[in-house]
Amino acid sequence: MRIAKTFAETRLVSSGEIGLVPTMGFLHEGHLSLIEAARRDRDNDTVVMSLFVNPLQFDRDSDLARYPRDAERDIELAAAAGADVVFAPDVDEMYPGEQLARVNVKRLSEPMEGPNRPGHFEGVATVVAKLLAGIRPDRSYFGRKDAQQLAIVRRMAVDLSFPGTIVGVPIVREADGLALSSRNIFLSDAERREALALSRGLMEAADAAEAGETAASRLTGAVLEQIREGSSVSVEYVMLASQDLVEPLSELDRPAFLALAAWSGGTRLIDNVHFDEAEDGFRADRGTRLQSKSVLYGNAGSREESRDAVDNRHR
Amino acid sequence: MRIAKTFAETRLVSSGEIGLVPTMGFLHEGHLSLIEAARRDRDNDTVVMSLFVNPLQFDRDSDLARYPRDAERDIELAAAAGADVVFAPDVDEMYPGEQLARVNVKRLSEPMEGPNRPGHFEGVATVVAKLLAGIRPDRSYFGRKDAQQLAIVRRMAVDLSFPGTIVGVPIVREADGLALSSRNIFLSDAERREALALSRGLMEAADAAEAGETAASRLTGAVLEQIREGSSVSVEYVMLASQDLVEPLSELDRPAFLALAAWSGGTRLIDNVHFDEAEDGFRADRGTRLQSKSVLYGNAGSREESRDAVDNRHR
Repeated sequence: MRIAKTFAETRLVSSGEIGLVPTMGFLHEGHLSLIEAARRDRDNDTVVMSLFVNPLQFDRDSDLARYPRDAERDIELAAAAGADVVFAPDVDEMYPGEQLARVNVKRLSEPMEGPNRPGHFEGVATVVAKLLAGIRPDRSYFGRKDAQQLAIVRRMAVDLSFPGTIVGVPIVREADGLALSSRNIFLSDAERREALALSRGLMEAADAAEAGETAASRLTGAVLEQIREGSSVSVEYVMLASQDLVEPLSELDRPAFLALAAWSGGTRLIDNVHFDEAEDGFRADRGTRLQSKSVLYGNAGSREESRDAVDNRHR
Repeated sequence: MRIAKTFAETRLVSSGEIGLVPTMGFLHEGHLSLIEAARRDRDNDTVVMSLFVNPLQFDRDSDLARYPRDAERDIELAAAAGADVVFAPDVDEMYPGEQLARVNVKRLSEPMEGPNRPGHFEGVATVVAKLLAGIRPDRSYFGRKDAQQLAIVRRMAVDLSFPGTIVGVPIVREADGLALSSRNIFLSDAERREALALSRGLMEAADAAEAGETAASRLTGAVLEQIREGSSVSVEYVMLASQDLVEPLSELDRPAFLALAAWSGGTRLIDNVHFDEAEDGFRADRGTRLQSKSVLYGNAGSREESRDAVDNRHR
């Protein structure tokens, strides 16, 4: 596997069709599933993973400073998952001067995560535009976990006439159903147990939708029913939205996702199920489940150490 | 010469290194000089001219509707000047849906033309980003006549990590010095005579700068001195600005341009001289001059017909 520090070098060491997996590092199986998806697609001659903690998408400098970094481990994991090239630029390669050019995707950036994270999606859209411009991938892989981000990136790529395809990859869940996130290590045992209501609720909604339920109110209701009175979970939003425009839907009548943000104790979690068009109605994408413990827990010593190291910017 | 209607087709018929000349059509020698510059550079294997009247950069729908179009003539002129491919997309190819993704270049868009044309530079930056993303040129050619646009496009390309180069090409002037513009046909003989004060003033300033004058006030003063009391010319701005950030300068101490916008009668004109670093101070780029009458006057019948046909949106 090659490590490239510049866009020019990345283009030079990449041949044929390119599959790109953009990451901010500190990899877990969610990221690895993106690399594996890129590797599985035989049309990709070169799989490039980018590894860059993007200052532009952080609302606060303090969050950026404590964002966890472990490039050595990330490079090992990326190689094992099948990456051919890791593009690991310095900040000076990505932002040689003040970043004056910014990409915004109107409307799609406004609901859900938008109000909670001012400037975040501008930072995401801008850095992904740079990756598409500088690496010229044929396919780029993004997790469905960040449903709104995926929609924004997809629209940005189409609207700016980038020729490649944006591929959405199913959520990876831990064995108990909790959507994989580096923040999961912040959860106490009790908080984690209660947080399982979120994925349980989404699975209930998935069953209901596949049984023909189309009312958004019933689908969101199925999630909310799982969250017990007096638990540590407080919901920020549960919303059925269209996959293309992230528009709130009252009926499941087009490709959509049912997405939520909630706090379990002091940790903010997001999760969703995507509903894709099938021959007879909609098929729910429930994601995949790990059979064993995530690499999240294995590599960083005790949970206490990880707690200090890992991003917890939504506290 | 090939005519391509889509980005995909343009990439397909273009081989090797690509030189791109973006235009909105209704070509004059200013555009043709861009094609010729692309053709002269032996590194370009394919010279592509894009021909698209970009709705996104018009402030008002009425201006867009009456923007002059003559694709047949443009294609002939482009072929004669050396273009290999004309990319002439329909609006549906460029904007298949609502254009939600927008590119903005902060700071550089604000002074000079910015206040006069709200949304204009966003439209320009966005459509040029699309051309760079969809055509993947190695070099793109823009006229120095639109000095601020050139700076914005250059910064956009760098900031979004597009690998190609942006090349600025000297202004083409008519034989009497007036910078070539499709709007020149609106000028009455008297207005035109008085408008010559603008280029004359810029040439005076160029001489002064090359003789060692660095004070912005003296350079702008040299322009203003040429404009007689009681003439039909009224100046909107004369400004010395840096080539990179379009920052107002009080001293010519880095690459800069001295730019102006002025009205002669009912027609708004812009013009400038660029000052480039040379071994001993700054070299002024005065542009080139036509030896004969511009194609602007030759092809559209009488001046009266042209007046009706041609853009005059700043009246």
